[in-house]
Amino acid sequence: MNELSPVAGGDALAFARILANDHVADIVEALNGEPHDVAAALLSEVPFERLVEIFDQPDLEAAPELAAMLPRLRAGKLLSAMSVDRAADVLRELDEPARSELLGTQAPALKATLLSILGYPEHSAASIMTTEYVSVPPDWTAGRTLDYIRKVERTRETIYAIYIVDPKTQELLRSVSLRRLIAGDPDDRIIDVALDRAPVSATPLTDREDVARQMSKYDLLAIPVVDNGRMLGIVTVDDIMDAMIEETTEDVHRFGGVEALDEPYMRASFLTMIRKRAGWLCVLFLSEMLTANAMQGYADELQKAIVLTLFIPLIMSSGGNSGSQATSLVLRALALGEIGLKDWWRVALRELPAGIVLGAILGAVGITRITLWQKIGLFDYGEHWMLVAATVGLALVGIVTFGSLAGSMLPFALKRIGFDPASASAPFVATLVDVTGLVIYFSVALVVLHGTLL
Amino acid sequence: MNELSPVAGGDALAFARILANDHVADIVEALNGEPHDVAAALLSEVPFERLVEIFDQPDLEAAPELAAMLPRLRAGKLLSAMSVDRAADVLRELDEPARSELLGTQAPALKATLLSILGYPEHSAASIMTTEYVSVPPDWTAGRTLDYIRKVERTRETIYAIYIVDPKTQELLRSVSLRRLIAGDPDDRIIDVALDRAPVSATPLTDREDVARQMSKYDLLAIPVVDNGRMLGIVTVDDIMDAMIEETTEDVHRFGGVEALDEPYMRASFLTMIRKRAGWLCVLFLSEMLTANAMQGYADELQKAIVLTLFIPLIMSSGGNSGSQATSLVLRALALGEIGLKDWWRVALRELPAGIVLGAILGAVGITRITLWQKIGLFDYGEHWMLVAATVGLALVGIVTFGSLAGSMLPFALKRIGFDPASASAPFVATLVDVTGLVIYFSVALVVLHGTLL
Repeated sequence: MNELSPVAGGDALAFARILANDHVADIVEALNGEPHDVAAALLSEVPFERLVEIFDQPDLEAAPELAAMLPRLRAGKLLSAMSVDRAADVLRELDEPARSELLGTQAPALKATLLSILGYPEHSAASIMTTEYVSVPPDWTAGRTLDYIRKVERTRETIYAIYIVDPKTQELLRSVSLRRLIAGDPDDRIIDVALDRAPVSATPLTDREDVARQMSKYDLLAIPVVDNGRMLGIVTVDDIMDAMIEETTEDVHRFGGVEALDEPYMRASFLTMIRKRAGWLCVLFLSEMLTANAMQGYADELQKAIVLTLFIPLIMSSGGNSGSQATSLVLRALALGEIGLKDWWRVALRELPAGIVLGAILGAVGITRITLWQKIGLFDYGEHWMLVAATVGLALVGIVTFGSLAGSMLPFALKRIGFDPASASAPFVATLVDVTGLVIYFSVALVVLHGTLL
Repeated sequence: MNELSPVAGGDALAFARILANDHVADIVEALNGEPHDVAAALLSEVPFERLVEIFDQPDLEAAPELAAMLPRLRAGKLLSAMSVDRAADVLRELDEPARSELLGTQAPALKATLLSILGYPEHSAASIMTTEYVSVPPDWTAGRTLDYIRKVERTRETIYAIYIVDPKTQELLRSVSLRRLIAGDPDDRIIDVALDRAPVSATPLTDREDVARQMSKYDLLAIPVVDNGRMLGIVTVDDIMDAMIEETTEDVHRFGGVEALDEPYMRASFLTMIRKRAGWLCVLFLSEMLTANAMQGYADELQKAIVLTLFIPLIMSSGGNSGSQATSLVLRALALGEIGLKDWWRVALRELPAGIVLGAILGAVGITRITLWQKIGLFDYGEHWMLVAATVGLALVGIVTFGSLAGSMLPFALKRIGFDPASASAPFVATLVDVTGLVIYFSVALVVLHGTLL
């Protein structure tokens, strides 16, 4: 593969050209396509300022590995020049002793900041915040603030939101957009230019998905992270967009019953792929074994009425499908904050009639199908075919109702016990509904076919 | 319900308080919770400027209905004062004749702009763009540009990206961030302040998901929409965030086999809910009927070896689960642009061995389970229990492999024929795998059990 790549194939010129002309995001894309040693070799030729730009891109996949491959001194310089949130990201994924070594090279203040960011749990607002924002005291004028912004602009992640902070207590008082600042009179006090309302803020432990929701609701470009009134940092919209894309990927994977892959599908190793999938697959397989137990319990009935087995896959899958529908609806409503944990009973009250109606529709279709086949003579379901059809129809009502209820309640249950509601929900619902579905089917059969087939 | 609401319950004072103090996003949230007639009555009391702010919020759910309930003159004024992209959104969802009537009240230039935006397909970049951006000719200085921005600021959706456009041809030459503009010398020509590189842009027909990807990759706050070099408008990050949230909801719903709901789960009427679900449920039910046909084909074998039926649900669900895993992985890789249509064979080459290994793992677990039950005496699978176990194990390898392959190829196939790859993928794969799984199971059984049970 090395031989085929334009970069690794000795043609470092091509990379030099990309490096000189392309957007840093494209350079990162090119680097992502190279093996680590080739990427590290290429990076050793890159001017320091450009190197900082490259490592500041969250899309650089092997950033921790590549940083560890740099000479210790250069890596230390790089880390202090990078934006603080990205530096924390790199350190977070770095193994010991490289992590401590690199942290040791940093100035005490930066080291303290990095350690405090690293101390926050993954996916929290504080874990993706940066401390490089613009803050000014309330008694400055708009003009003075603008001059100050011009001076510090290069070292701030965003200058479009300016925070008015009490210099003594670090309390966040107000925020002003650069837009308002520019439109206003330079002689006005900054606190008078600001909106007369406390800014929308997050706590350090707010989940990043909630931060995204706030940002989208209030159309913000940055949200301050505030702990008991004290301003700690900001989360910017570009980081939140990256986080949203990552969250969606995780949710889709979990929903499909895979442990979230944290690398692109085509780049994950074969072993990783098996590891991420085999776990859930085995858990589901073991739970699904209960269906075999259920079937064994009805072995006598099966022997007597073999015609019942013909509809088992059909009936079970309908329960699974209605469950998967309800799960996906509730999952999304929970994620969007449209409903909360306390609304479970409202949802149940909606899903119960919905399940009955949907089940009745499928039941009618099922009965029609059996009648049709029997009348046309495509298959003979025996002399009691009408009772068989009734069994299938009634069982469908019961199973689709149960599927809708179970499917809608599972995300609540998962969330209640502290799991991500998306975790393997669809396959889980299917398994749950399969086992219960069999019991419902045979129970209906025992009642309807009593005295005839059973 | 009306009686319980603080607003409808006669207490219009509460709403007045919200209106005076709260963020417009919170007012919109309050309005969304009211029936349309109550919301319209409340809005009739709102000062015009505030009304514009409220209607500019994309989260206002009943915007078209509420606009139609306003006096025609006020509605017309409102529409021209709103941001262009939001006005187009409102018109798009408005029924005739209200739509034409409202359009008729607009000035010719605005009417032409609105009609051109309305002409673009849903989910395209042009359909969510605004024409309210800052553009200046290349020969202006940075200082003159800043003065101009101060003047027009109020009527522009964003001022953080400034576009340098040839005044004759409307060709987009360069873009400058307000950040660079502020940091630079006021006497510099704006074209010299700009980056020496054509800005990242979208075409009118670029899908909004691709726009989101570009925006996140290049950390942009707005992307220009350019048609053959001519600048048409911009898409801003706040609209893209809303679009991303909407797309994720649609994908999760489709993935779960529901037609995308365009309203919150708890607010959708019972009939809407049934309609959005019954369609797919029936399609899947009808396809799944093929399992009944397949079973009928093996009716004789079933009669002879009833023990085989015990494992049908277990085996089928394993195929469905492995398929759903593969689907979710491929779906996300496609959505993120990690793989394209042309990569289908690469994916197939990964999924084939993955399926075999995963199938072998489940097969081993399955054989162990049967052996255990037989030895402990929990159930008697008959004298040929070892052959039954072998049948189950081998069938699992075949079905899980088929599931992984089918699950990974279905999104490609759906995309190839122009569907959203997420459409009902998980239930579809399950159905496909169920039918094929039965055939695989009975074929393996015919070979392994030939001369003994069958």
